[in-house]
Amino acid sequence: MPDPGLTQTGVETVRVDLGPRSYDICIGDGVLASVGEHFAELRPGARAAIVTDETVDVIHGDALRAHLDQANISHVTIAVPAGEVSKSFASLQDVVTQLLAAGMERGDVVLAFGGGVVGDLAGFAAGITRRGMDLVQIPTSLLAQVDSSVGGKTGINAAQGKNLVGLFNQPQLVLADTVLLDTLPKRELRAGYAEMLKYGAIDRPDFFAWLEDNHAAVFFGGDARRHAVATSCRVKADVVKADELEGGVRALLNLGHTFGHALEAAVDYDARRLVHGEGVAIGMVLAHEFSARMNHCSPDEAIRLRAHLTAVGLPTDITTIPGSEAFTTERLMDAIAQDKKVKRGALTFILTRGIGEAFVADDVPRAEASAFLDQKLATKE
Amino acid sequence: MPDPGLTQTGVETVRVDLGPRSYDICIGDGVLASVGEHFAELRPGARAAIVTDETVDVIHGDALRAHLDQANISHVTIAVPAGEVSKSFASLQDVVTQLLAAGMERGDVVLAFGGGVVGDLAGFAAGITRRGMDLVQIPTSLLAQVDSSVGGKTGINAAQGKNLVGLFNQPQLVLADTVLLDTLPKRELRAGYAEMLKYGAIDRPDFFAWLEDNHAAVFFGGDARRHAVATSCRVKADVVKADELEGGVRALLNLGHTFGHALEAAVDYDARRLVHGEGVAIGMVLAHEFSARMNHCSPDEAIRLRAHLTAVGLPTDITTIPGSEAFTTERLMDAIAQDKKVKRGALTFILTRGIGEAFVADDVPRAEASAFLDQKLATKE
Repeated sequence: MPDPGLTQTGVETVRVDLGPRSYDICIGDGVLASVGEHFAELRPGARAAIVTDETVDVIHGDALRAHLDQANISHVTIAVPAGEVSKSFASLQDVVTQLLAAGMERGDVVLAFGGGVVGDLAGFAAGITRRGMDLVQIPTSLLAQVDSSVGGKTGINAAQGKNLVGLFNQPQLVLADTVLLDTLPKRELRAGYAEMLKYGAIDRPDFFAWLEDNHAAVFFGGDARRHAVATSCRVKADVVKADELEGGVRALLNLGHTFGHALEAAVDYDARRLVHGEGVAIGMVLAHEFSARMNHCSPDEAIRLRAHLTAVGLPTDITTIPGSEAFTTERLMDAIAQDKKVKRGALTFILTRGIGEAFVADDVPRAEASAFLDQKLATKE
Repeated sequence: MPDPGLTQTGVETVRVDLGPRSYDICIGDGVLASVGEHFAELRPGARAAIVTDETVDVIHGDALRAHLDQANISHVTIAVPAGEVSKSFASLQDVVTQLLAAGMERGDVVLAFGGGVVGDLAGFAAGITRRGMDLVQIPTSLLAQVDSSVGGKTGINAAQGKNLVGLFNQPQLVLADTVLLDTLPKRELRAGYAEMLKYGAIDRPDFFAWLEDNHAAVFFGGDARRHAVATSCRVKADVVKADELEGGVRALLNLGHTFGHALEAAVDYDARRLVHGEGVAIGMVLAHEFSARMNHCSPDEAIRLRAHLTAVGLPTDITTIPGSEAFTTERLMDAIAQDKKVKRGALTFILTRGIGEAFVADDVPRAEASAFLDQKLATKE
């Protein structure tokens, strides 16, 4: 297991190289304790606004506040309800208003402390409060550590779909404390794992194979987990560097997401029925099967992906989603057409030539996608 | 009157040079008619969303739509109520929701068609819809043509103050049709004039003197007006180029605005009592008088400014604002302290060594400002 960036204390640093907007991701067990040190280096004398959700606040809030107190950093806490419900205009207005009411100034720092919802919401709020406060992402879920906290995408949901309103707002620092993941429900850990596996499936077949061999150790924690998180961040950082504003290659990160988002919309974003990472898991299988149907790859590739997802306990079929018997091709296609990746009406999908060989297909005939979904919905496996 | 950038058709082009975010401002009588041509060059095949207010829509909406129709550009219109009330979270959500409901995609274009309120609101909405649609500013007020449409500041108001929520979002093009200003109420034209005069007062004493001599021709229209608008845009473009994100010198553009915003807050942003440009006019006089009090300039400089503002019919004294007898120093100081330009509690003002010699003073003692306001409020002139 190669760890070139590993220091003696077990902290790995990944640099996201974006010119004047470059920043570090510090990954390792216990990096939360270094928040004061980093903060003092980044913005000496500034105040901190911890934006978090009520669940994370209860579990980890006091630890973060104690670290800030030790470093004599003045702070306030703004806690929103946990869950996707907080990715709304109402929550955005609430957070911004609380930041202003607390007298936060432009050089003060928002600490986005939580999972993907908090990171997206707090990152958006930081970006528009006084036309841009500073931002440190402290992701507490695996999904957020390997995906949403890196790369600057922030946003909320709209009636028309997920993440349709937001900003590109790069943080000044990301602290990914891998020991915090021990408090996650197993289901959330698995959901984050789907996003890690995605990086392997996009263009790192070696990493995909490594995960097939080491998934148990990654779930257990320690060195294997840190390695997997750091590798994921490195892949994402490379893609973001090549295409910060998603003009081209960054779309690859949406492997599994076009179908996945449509499935999340079909359950009305009800996390009891489907969490994001589960949607991505099923969506990746669909992307591989759809690629096979379009003769871009062998059906064996989808079978290999499906086998590994099953081994770690992730879902692989639409029909396993509670209530999926009510899904229709029309509803799913509508959601796909609302996707941000639609250009001038043509459908864009991330397809693949095999594990580690994903590509952007921006000319997929709507009828092909529709016929494929008809077939998947008919198959009650 | 030097007009190096003037073409035969009477259109002057000012380039805002911001690297990959550079854009042109086209200024002249009738440039609105060229919208189709510009649009086809900028984003061939894209759709247009006209974001405007109900008043501008009634007066000029059909003309714009006719120009788009002639160029075969598909368009929708989103009209918000006229006035500062639309710089709110509710209006922002409304515009974004309508853009999404109309199926606007990332490569489609928001045409911000109106005065400062529309430009700020539509520019903000464009910046966050699908994480950034394209944006063309078509300012219809003098204030918007010389100030708010140039430089990328967008935003809405919060309970804590004006423009506290927003983005830096540069447009891809600005079309400033100077003949549209003929439909403006005289009071609004005067208010925009205050912002033009501000550029002279900041660092172009020649332009200030030119305006003293030519103000009647500027109000009348034609070449003098175009020259004044273009010169103002050029000054602003230079400042924005030097400091796009307001880290330093861009603060100079706030000459008159720290006091001005406090006065607007004191009348609860009631435009019947005080419009923004009038606040800036009074604010500039206060900034010059405060500078004289702090021994940065001669009192004659404030007298010269006051004389010219009076000549064009702009207010120069707090005590002429309806209801100003209820103003208190405490209330005004609170508003000033809420200003974005406060850093770590110290007060920042734009002061001056004389007409054309403004500078940023970031260490103004609160007690000095307070004593100065006490004096101004006591003087019922």
